[in-house]
Amino acid sequence: MSAKNIAVLGTGGGGRAHAARLAELGYEVHVGTRDVEATLARTEPDMMGNAPYKEWLADHPGIQLHAFADAAAAADDIVINGIDGHNAVAALTSIADQLTGKTLIDYAVPYLYGAAMDHPWPTPWGTMPKMDPCDTDSLAEQIQRALPDVKVVKSFVTQEQETVVNPKAIGGGDHTMFVASDHTDAKQTATDLLTAYGWTDVLDLGGLVAARGMEMYAHMHSAIGLALGLGHHFGVKVVR
Amino acid sequence: MSAKNIAVLGTGGGGRAHAARLAELGYEVHVGTRDVEATLARTEPDMMGNAPYKEWLADHPGIQLHAFADAAAAADDIVINGIDGHNAVAALTSIADQLTGKTLIDYAVPYLYGAAMDHPWPTPWGTMPKMDPCDTDSLAEQIQRALPDVKVVKSFVTQEQETVVNPKAIGGGDHTMFVASDHTDAKQTATDLLTAYGWTDVLDLGGLVAARGMEMYAHMHSAIGLALGLGHHFGVKVVR
Repeated sequence: MSAKNIAVLGTGGGGRAHAARLAELGYEVHVGTRDVEATLARTEPDMMGNAPYKEWLADHPGIQLHAFADAAAAADDIVINGIDGHNAVAALTSIADQLTGKTLIDYAVPYLYGAAMDHPWPTPWGTMPKMDPCDTDSLAEQIQRALPDVKVVKSFVTQEQETVVNPKAIGGGDHTMFVASDHTDAKQTATDLLTAYGWTDVLDLGGLVAARGMEMYAHMHSAIGLALGLGHHFGVKVVR
Repeated sequence: MSAKNIAVLGTGGGGRAHAARLAELGYEVHVGTRDVEATLARTEPDMMGNAPYKEWLADHPGIQLHAFADAAAAADDIVINGIDGHNAVAALTSIADQLTGKTLIDYAVPYLYGAAMDHPWPTPWGTMPKMDPCDTDSLAEQIQRALPDVKVVKSFVTQEQETVVNPKAIGGGDHTMFVASDHTDAKQTATDLLTAYGWTDVLDLGGLVAARGMEMYAHMHSAIGLALGLGHHFGVKVVR
């Protein structure tokens, strides 16, 4: 029996963390990018300081790089969305056919990067950029409305992705991951993946409406990160 | 030497939790309300199901009920703001003189209750009412701007107030409380009060701008509460 095929959309730090860990777990990993040639042509670090993707790919043999549509089409069921929040709805809508019937796990925060990138991070005022949508809607719900035949799960978003794929690195792994979705089977699929990553405390927050709180938690996450100091990783445990 | 005088503004469940605990800790507690006669005249439970204040007060001898201004004036330094978020700026501005130079610890969430009270809580859609301000501003910052001579600290807001005043009730007390303020001395005052309440892990999130994330966390708090079931109390620990 061949390995299960899984797709990771996006070539940033989060997407790399998932792709590398999934390959380690024995998945056939299909990474999606907007323009394969452009991605491979880059020779400078990206805006977050990640090494050029071509170099990273050379260190991770077996991981395949495709256009978004081809990566999504290759997935048996799970597609992980690591596309920036402000581009996610448009990019995912353009590959709706390849996503139909599949589980899409979204971890994006809908920051308004256009304006935000005028200033460094951490911002001088200690918060991340403005979010849109916020409070009365969420990016995950927008994606679900745009793609009614896809099973959207919100998860991962409350942690750095390096911690999501390796929870044991923090406090022996005794902290909490959250999932929300309007599709019970897809939520179980995501929970099984989290279990494979090493999570032992996955809290089901119910329907996808809970994605609002999960996305809005981003400012607390940033504030805690700033308080502890850059490079100091942490998790959050729901003590009950 | 006489006991220290402290003020608690608001007669809801949160204010009662603080007032009772502070009295137990030996403080002289001055509770503030908009209209003392009206508060004492009520014979029905309030909208959150709390018993009439007159009954509660009879069970808590020594706690004094005043008009907002008189309660604030009686405080040596600390005033705890338990006024509903949508009324807080106006009510506090009206007693600016009595607050001058003091530490105001605010735990309100700026929910738009006017519209919100048309429906029950938990809401059918699983989130609390819309917040205003949100994301690019916070209630705590609004209060600080309205009252530049008061030292505003945001704290308490990430937990139920019954847990804030008695953290040991959850997981032996090993969870995390947050403080944020532009006034270092006031933040220390709040931290000392938290220590008296029993907190051992108080994380300083920096300037008052961090109140944005603390207030926006309210939706996650509600979602976790709904997931665990009403009446199931919890805390959140920053594992690092």
